[in-house]
Amino acid sequence: MSLHGQNFIGNDKSSDNNDTFQAVNPATKDSFEPPFHEATEGEVNHAAEKAADAFLEYSKKSASEKADFLDAIGDEIMELGDALIERCMNESGLSEGRLNGERGRTVNQLKLFADVVRDGSWVDARIDTGDPDVRSMRKALGPVGVFGASNFPLAFSVAGGDTASALAAGCPIVVKAHPSHPGTCELVAEAIMNAAEKTGMPDGVFSMVHGTSNDVGLAIVRHPKIKAVGFTGSYGGGKALFDEGNNRPEPIPVYAEMGSTNPVFILPGALKERKESIAEELTGSVSLGVGQFCTNPGLVFHEESDDATSFQSSLSEQMKNVESGVMLNEGIQKNYQSGLEKLSEVDGVEILAKGNDNENGYRGSTALLRASATVYFENQDVEEEVFGPSTVLITSSGKHQLIQAAQRLRGHLTATIHGTEEDLAEYSELVEILEQKVGRIIFNGYPTGVRVCHAMIHGGPFPATTDSRTTSVGTTAMRRFARPVCYQDFPNITLPDELKDENPRGIWRLLNGEISNSPVD
Amino acid sequence: MSLHGQNFIGNDKSSDNNDTFQAVNPATKDSFEPPFHEATEGEVNHAAEKAADAFLEYSKKSASEKADFLDAIGDEIMELGDALIERCMNESGLSEGRLNGERGRTVNQLKLFADVVRDGSWVDARIDTGDPDVRSMRKALGPVGVFGASNFPLAFSVAGGDTASALAAGCPIVVKAHPSHPGTCELVAEAIMNAAEKTGMPDGVFSMVHGTSNDVGLAIVRHPKIKAVGFTGSYGGGKALFDEGNNRPEPIPVYAEMGSTNPVFILPGALKERKESIAEELTGSVSLGVGQFCTNPGLVFHEESDDATSFQSSLSEQMKNVESGVMLNEGIQKNYQSGLEKLSEVDGVEILAKGNDNENGYRGSTALLRASATVYFENQDVEEEVFGPSTVLITSSGKHQLIQAAQRLRGHLTATIHGTEEDLAEYSELVEILEQKVGRIIFNGYPTGVRVCHAMIHGGPFPATTDSRTTSVGTTAMRRFARPVCYQDFPNITLPDELKDENPRGIWRLLNGEISNSPVD
Repeated sequence: MSLHGQNFIGNDKSSDNNDTFQAVNPATKDSFEPPFHEATEGEVNHAAEKAADAFLEYSKKSASEKADFLDAIGDEIMELGDALIERCMNESGLSEGRLNGERGRTVNQLKLFADVVRDGSWVDARIDTGDPDVRSMRKALGPVGVFGASNFPLAFSVAGGDTASALAAGCPIVVKAHPSHPGTCELVAEAIMNAAEKTGMPDGVFSMVHGTSNDVGLAIVRHPKIKAVGFTGSYGGGKALFDEGNNRPEPIPVYAEMGSTNPVFILPGALKERKESIAEELTGSVSLGVGQFCTNPGLVFHEESDDATSFQSSLSEQMKNVESGVMLNEGIQKNYQSGLEKLSEVDGVEILAKGNDNENGYRGSTALLRASATVYFENQDVEEEVFGPSTVLITSSGKHQLIQAAQRLRGHLTATIHGTEEDLAEYSELVEILEQKVGRIIFNGYPTGVRVCHAMIHGGPFPATTDSRTTSVGTTAMRRFARPVCYQDFPNITLPDELKDENPRGIWRLLNGEISNSPVD
Repeated sequence: MSLHGQNFIGNDKSSDNNDTFQAVNPATKDSFEPPFHEATEGEVNHAAEKAADAFLEYSKKSASEKADFLDAIGDEIMELGDALIERCMNESGLSEGRLNGERGRTVNQLKLFADVVRDGSWVDARIDTGDPDVRSMRKALGPVGVFGASNFPLAFSVAGGDTASALAAGCPIVVKAHPSHPGTCELVAEAIMNAAEKTGMPDGVFSMVHGTSNDVGLAIVRHPKIKAVGFTGSYGGGKALFDEGNNRPEPIPVYAEMGSTNPVFILPGALKERKESIAEELTGSVSLGVGQFCTNPGLVFHEESDDATSFQSSLSEQMKNVESGVMLNEGIQKNYQSGLEKLSEVDGVEILAKGNDNENGYRGSTALLRASATVYFENQDVEEEVFGPSTVLITSSGKHQLIQAAQRLRGHLTATIHGTEEDLAEYSELVEILEQKVGRIIFNGYPTGVRVCHAMIHGGPFPATTDSRTTSVGTTAMRRFARPVCYQDFPNITLPDELKDENPRGIWRLLNGEISNSPVD
């Protein structure tokens, strides 16, 4: 499968700019073919205009037509076969097994959103009969800008969660391809274009532009026809786009998922009963995918005790024995190194263990650090995310200090509690605190691994995300790209199907305050 | 009932500042007793700290306890009796009949939210059994700042929609009293304090501070413990608070409803059939409450025709015959005058009719202006809200120009279409355009009058509001003050009641993707 390196402006390929860049294999540090064309501001604007032109036609497609489009994207991605996995391995350094799994997740996610669109109840249809007759439902916001992440080149990239949820909600999209895996992006973009053609979607429902500079992304966020943005990546990048979105003449929501340190609390009962298995499993979670997950557990809190000392030894032993792994790209590896250095320079932070190192490629090895709760209280830096396979043990003098530590946490995606049921009863206050700090609380498990389902929340208070009211994984992610529209005293025949008396779609609605899938009498 | 003029810092009264201000009767221009104390930054901070301290205890109150609190607020407001209506008439210039109606609406709104809290399904409980077991529901955001509007001294003020929905969601509040009706605010604050005491709510669940400067409001928005803000008022005020909320170290949502010009489209069939009655009813809607409604129809679009000419004559006649009315305060009256002057100075805008003028008090009289669609296309100013009893007729050369006019609209709260069913079929494109421009579309009615119900949307794209995904009226307003929290693999007994297997609250939940009020098998 040969790649062309061009931008996708709706159905047109475009390469107005002679500036190009190439992908780099992080395992070998070699760049490889083809060159990819940086998009110009004109190309970005053209893509946004096409998206706006496509919006009305696309949003008017029936639910089953939109769902077929999503299903077809999944089918076309599978059709790419090994070529996609090979290109993606070369660009990301991720293993074949991991990428096969991620592809499955990406396709299943598209199909889950297709199911939700077919089901139709997600629109939150509400009907209050009487005088006046008032009915409302969610409608698509308009064209959406999507910024994929480097660490999930399939599931959080061109056809990832933001794309799937925006298309499902009825929004055309303009994707900023991640420069760390541009060939993977192109292959997936072709799959989407094929799916759009086969299912009769309008020109402009999908565009994708390349760019290594911030300018391309900023041009997307600034374009007046773009009505919302989904982003997964760094705090710096996400916050810059968020500010840009707020400072437009017409502010728009920028949903940025910017990572998290995902605190883990190991309570005394669990430490007593399961210190060995927790040490082993935690090492697995910290080092999974060379630690390159937004949900990587980077802070581990526990109280001082003999069990804790023994747990620390086991964990050190485990962490030391992990082989280094290839990281996604040079920038991520450098940031990991400098993040670790900065952390270890904090007074009172000591390095307990380091994994094996290896000079080939952009590799990262595990690191286990330790500090007292007092050091943690005095140094905001200790809470900062170090993206990679490291974690910091924070030792508290007792329950009081552990609770204090939870109270001073800023926003994170997840928190994890290891405990017995007795621990949970004794530390019930901890759950109440963490409910205010994170989007998801895990009991006796690990934060890595995010199930794509209806109840999943992958979000959390700032600075984990820019909008704690939303999730970027799970079916409620669609709500980010819709807003309610209300119809007062409309003749039945002119209402959207979802709001008609006879309920032709058979959806669940709030009818005069009661949940119902019946027609209006 | 004597007033003390102090700030309510939780259960404490406070008047650290010697700077005071007095209410002014807009009908007589006289100021009257007592003096009200401007809050200091220290008082605002104290209120926010108390709200944060109260948060956990308040959010843990059972649904029926929170609902009883809301009901009790309504009861206590009724207990204030005529004293409330009299003070409010003197401070606002609004009539006894209007204020009795508004009080009823305010109390019913509190009771409606109480019902929704008791019902419990609003939390959007979601359960996906399996491995892992994932469950999520909405939880309160934290302390909320509430800024009331001058034009609804009861329904959009101290115990108005923002307060009712924030308290219903589980959030303590810090209210910035509107300086245009400080005595009304104090009376209602006392009612809330009495209700809090009678229903055992924690100190800090409610605070209220006075202030005539922007500083008091900004201090609320800037306080790190405040997690969201509700505002109804001017574009300038709302946008300033929105920017402040975004520029905090931890950005927070600021839901500002900033008004709207509420375009009305009168289609040819309706004009032919009902020109006389539309002229009469439209005059009523424009002049209702001296035009001081966010939903006041300030732009009326139609096509040139003999019917249109005759409609314009009728409308001019009707508008001329409206008596002037007392406006809410000096600032609003001055802005109305200067807004009208600015509008009438636009080349091509002519004044068709002016209502009777009267020199007593801060009065405003009706004004009917007219411009061609071409003038409207060339002058952004014509679309700007003039808060008061005026409206601008925009005459289009035909259907094409009418549709063009709809397309260039910015965001508004409402749009209205008058038409026959044949008109609607012929102008179906108009509905599709307006769906992208407003929060509510009214057919053959008038935008003034907002029914408080489950389906109501009082919101719309910027600049009508700062968050088109939300409403400030209707039961979904509660969602503004909540965010989802997800529990993974929690023991059943430790889950919130809403997520327990046995569904003790009997609420509707999304159980493995299906709407259900059954227990988990």
